[in-house]
Amino acid sequence: MAIVLGPNRYGKAETRLVRVVRDGDTHGLADLNVSIALSGDLAATHHTGDNSGVLPTDTMKNTVYAFAKQHGVGEPEDFALRLARHFVSTQSQVHQARVAIESYGWERLGPHSFQRQGGYVRTCAVTVGEQIQVVSGINGLVLLNSTASEFHGFARDRYTTLPETTDRILATAVDARWRHTSDRGDWGGSFAAARDALISAFVNTYSHSLQQTLLAMGTLVLAARPEIAEIRLALPNKHHYLVDLSPFDLSNDNEVFIAGDRPYGLIEGTVTRDDAPPAGPEWYR
Amino acid sequence: MAIVLGPNRYGKAETRLVRVVRDGDTHGLADLNVSIALSGDLAATHHTGDNSGVLPTDTMKNTVYAFAKQHGVGEPEDFALRLARHFVSTQSQVHQARVAIESYGWERLGPHSFQRQGGYVRTCAVTVGEQIQVVSGINGLVLLNSTASEFHGFARDRYTTLPETTDRILATAVDARWRHTSDRGDWGGSFAAARDALISAFVNTYSHSLQQTLLAMGTLVLAARPEIAEIRLALPNKHHYLVDLSPFDLSNDNEVFIAGDRPYGLIEGTVTRDDAPPAGPEWYR
Amino acid sequence: MAIVLGPNRYGKAETRLVRVVRDGDTHGLADLNVSIALSGDLAATHHTGDNSGVLPTDTMKNTVYAFAKQHGVGEPEDFALRLARHFVSTQSQVHQARVAIESYGWERLGPHSFQRQGGYVRTCAVTVGEQIQVVSGINGLVLLNSTASEFHGFARDRYTTLPETTDRILATAVDARWRHTSDRGDWGGSFAAARDALISAFVNTYSHSLQQTLLAMGTLVLAARPEIAEIRLALPNKHHYLVDLSPFDLSNDNEVFIAGDRPYGLIEGTVTRDDAPPAGPEWYR
Amino acid sequence: MAIVLGPNRYGKAETRLVRVVRDGDTHGLADLNVSIALSGDLAATHHTGDNSGVLPTDTMKNTVYAFAKQHGVGEPEDFALRLARHFVSTQSQVHQARVAIESYGWERLGPHSFQRQGGYVRTCAVTVGEQIQVVSGINGLVLLNSTASEFHGFARDRYTTLPETTDRILATAVDARWRHTSDRGDWGGSFAAARDALISAFVNTYSHSLQQTLLAMGTLVLAARPEIAEIRLALPNKHHYLVDLSPFDLSNDNEVFIAGDRPYGLIEGTVTRDDAPPAGPEWYR
Repeated sequence: MAIVLGPNRYGKAETRLVRVVRDGDTHGLADLNVSIALSGDLAATHHTGDNSGVLPTDTMKNTVYAFAKQHGVGEPEDFALRLARHFVSTQSQVHQARVAIESYGWERLGPHSFQRQGGYVRTCAVTVGEQIQVVSGINGLVLLNSTASEFHGFARDRYTTLPETTDRILATAVDARWRHTSDRGDWGGSFAAARDALISAFVNTYSHSLQQTLLAMGTLVLAARPEIAEIRLALPNKHHYLVDLSPFDLSNDNEVFIAGDRPYGLIEGTVTRDDAPPAGPEWYR
Repeated sequence: MAIVLGPNRYGKAETRLVRVVRDGDTHGLADLNVSIALSGDLAATHHTGDNSGVLPTDTMKNTVYAFAKQHGVGEPEDFALRLARHFVSTQSQVHQARVAIESYGWERLGPHSFQRQGGYVRTCAVTVGEQIQVVSGINGLVLLNSTASEFHGFARDRYTTLPETTDRILATAVDARWRHTSDRGDWGGSFAAARDALISAFVNTYSHSLQQTLLAMGTLVLAARPEIAEIRLALPNKHHYLVDLSPFDLSNDNEVFIAGDRPYGLIEGTVTRDDAPPAGPEWYR
Repeated sequence: MAIVLGPNRYGKAETRLVRVVRDGDTHGLADLNVSIALSGDLAATHHTGDNSGVLPTDTMKNTVYAFAKQHGVGEPEDFALRLARHFVSTQSQVHQARVAIESYGWERLGPHSFQRQGGYVRTCAVTVGEQIQVVSGINGLVLLNSTASEFHGFARDRYTTLPETTDRILATAVDARWRHTSDRGDWGGSFAAARDALISAFVNTYSHSLQQTLLAMGTLVLAARPEIAEIRLALPNKHHYLVDLSPFDLSNDNEVFIAGDRPYGLIEGTVTRDDAPPAGPEWYR
Repeated sequence: MAIVLGPNRYGKAETRLVRVVRDGDTHGLADLNVSIALSGDLAATHHTGDNSGVLPTDTMKNTVYAFAKQHGVGEPEDFALRLARHFVSTQSQVHQARVAIESYGWERLGPHSFQRQGGYVRTCAVTVGEQIQVVSGINGLVLLNSTASEFHGFARDRYTTLPETTDRILATAVDARWRHTSDRGDWGGSFAAARDALISAFVNTYSHSLQQTLLAMGTLVLAARPEIAEIRLALPNKHHYLVDLSPFDLSNDNEVFIAGDRPYGLIEGTVTRDDAPPAGPEWYR
């Protein structure tokens, strides 16, 4: 029996980049949070502190800023691919690079003026190694249907007290990510369409469970976007509790709710094509 | 010398209310976070634990939900006024009530479907006591100009190293609140106009300091809205640091920035009318 | 009627300083978050962008770091006083300086090794202007009594449903600050004794209301520490709800509780000496 | 080609439980945050909204509270195992249950009085399905060495500007989890010993890289605790930047530092026994 080093990686997390694009008087804005992780032949630094194979994480940060100048940012997926390929191709001891980006939206107010949108964050995570995998996603998209949601006919045991309902609020904060079949694409168009499909399916599904809504959302994304192989959804069930107003001789016909913080339901699921190419290892993380 | 009880108050903080308004098939949505604080003859409970003058904070919470049913919510200022007046008028030992509300915006997606807007929070704080004061506000409105901002000619001492600049990013997260001259008004219209004035002044002010922008923002709100007596602004200067790309033989003409977290500048100021009525004590808190 | 600039100030917030003191092989550690705000003759920058009276906030940050080297940190109150006096005495247009510090505790593990304590944050806020005021405080000290707390005999109205109780959990996160009668003192000893008095009073008070406990806490601090003139306490009532286990044919004799997040009670009060010197304006902020 | 449902699970997240144990006048306290996820035959609810196999997440919450009364809490690992086995054994459609618990520490102040420790959170995640896996862990343990850390001899490319150093601050917030070889054990003793080993290795390793420290930490845990098969560590490198005081004619011999927020390094690695039993699928999540 011996104690040995297992899988490992290292990198720079949360490098905050704002890139201004000056097209005459009209400016564009990219606002990113970039996290990089490299893996490969890194045993020496772990065992002896020999850092000859360790490109400093400070260098990764510098590379983000230098590439933003040299190549521009463009779509986050392309920027992530460029960075990931750079590390794998220039550092022979690096066998895999993962670049994850959060992209914050800004609404234009004028030629050089912007208001930050708070509604959701666009994400991507790109892995370049033995294979290339591009994952796009969205975080913090909060949706609510004030009706058209039921929940009944569920399993029961001795600890079950939940009343059945044929009318409840259904609310969630969508956390979704989907992997692409290719490393080339119209990333911006694909993201917008996937986002819209998620919203559309949530709005238009008469729901008997959040699981049913989840499958409808994932299915619509895949049906609409052939470039997407698989989607993973994590949907908190943001409970809205009907207030008992009967002590005050008041009715409450699904009008007055407590918006709960904790606990919350959490529905997680994957929707895939039966002929989807196999996912890379990072998909499961 | 004696040790004595000084000013005090108590209440229920952060009661989360979602109110659905059902107008046939079309639903409306109010999403509020309500905090209530009462003050008055409360010495007994402090000194002996005699609670005969203490309306439970649980009752305050119940009142929020009951009033949402009985009277509806309407504008947050009106809902806050109704609650504050209720406590002062029905509990003789309560001399002052303060009701503060955060209101979260939702964008309509369908007759009963909504997407939460993340851009900013609308606030109000109403005080009912010897006088009535209505304060409205906005929080978390993040604005950025990618140029049209200078900073130079400043005072210097032996610890000053900041270079002067004639072109920088100016970014802030607006935290503003303003007090009204009256307890009646078109609160929704007033809020929207004040918000738009804040944005407009930020966008259109060629800035030599964030202080200059602050005064322009406050002035435009007061100029546009006669019902507003005074406005307080707290504007973090969200620094964007120009990256030194010269080690990589790259120029950086205000294109690539580090978005900093801490430290940040903080510019605070009040803009008022010289004939404004005096503020209530809660204004200064 | 004219629109005019009212009270204003500006500064650098949240400068994060770690200061190592090397006493041979044994190191000491100070870990601070410093926020500075200056006020005075600042009209010009607001009205015209003339910054000749504006010492940059970047200079304030530099001063924090330079003073940490030149003078060391010592007690946070002394470090804050030194900084505040510096700005008022060296910049004639600055009439008042406020320096607020959060100080994070570390437990020693070895000569140069430390573990961060997470239990609470020690704070101070010093104001130097027409008068000098030193305020010390504590934040995030979470205390809980699992019994010896009652709440009954309270006022009732038509919205009251809370059952009376003679046995409940009482829990809070102490947020306290107290002002000193002098600008000189054994700040460290005073803080430790005030903290211990707060804890002792919480533990040893058989409570009929959190208000009663608040007064006991403030009174013990003043009784124990003659150098403290007045104390302000903000005590959230962190509700622990008894779970109804009767549907499962189980009793619950104050054994199983839901720890609630929101809403929470909030009890605020001041305890003072009847001959306390008047407070400076910043005390009320 | 068809679009199909892939792996999925559902449950109740963040059920907050406080359990008081009354041993005469002396009380004990357990403070937990419990998250449950079940997987199995759940296709029907996804496809048609047929919920006959869906035990409500509300029931999971009830079960947490009921079990806390019926069986007590004891060690978090045992409580998690009891819950997980319950769901798998009583709901035939449930093939796997995962129960993750955060446990918050409290220091005793008196027979029924407690102060919350803020230093770290003890965690566990138990999976019961085809096999049983018990993972324990720690979160938010912040450690700092003010010297005895070097970083030099690293790889370089055209974007490398980091100076080499033979003396720097090394600081991290330990996030570790380790899997046990058995589902029975002295969980409390094992946790305390693993925590102490992590701290001891951090303190006593003269570090040439955080990777070297990581391996030392993991190795000491495995060497000390035969019941642990494998450990995963995620160590942020919390950068402390030496302040350049030369503009002020001051030296800085590793005395004055900026504590940075973002970006930060992130070093992740696994240390294992070469004869460790294979991990369950949840280990990699």
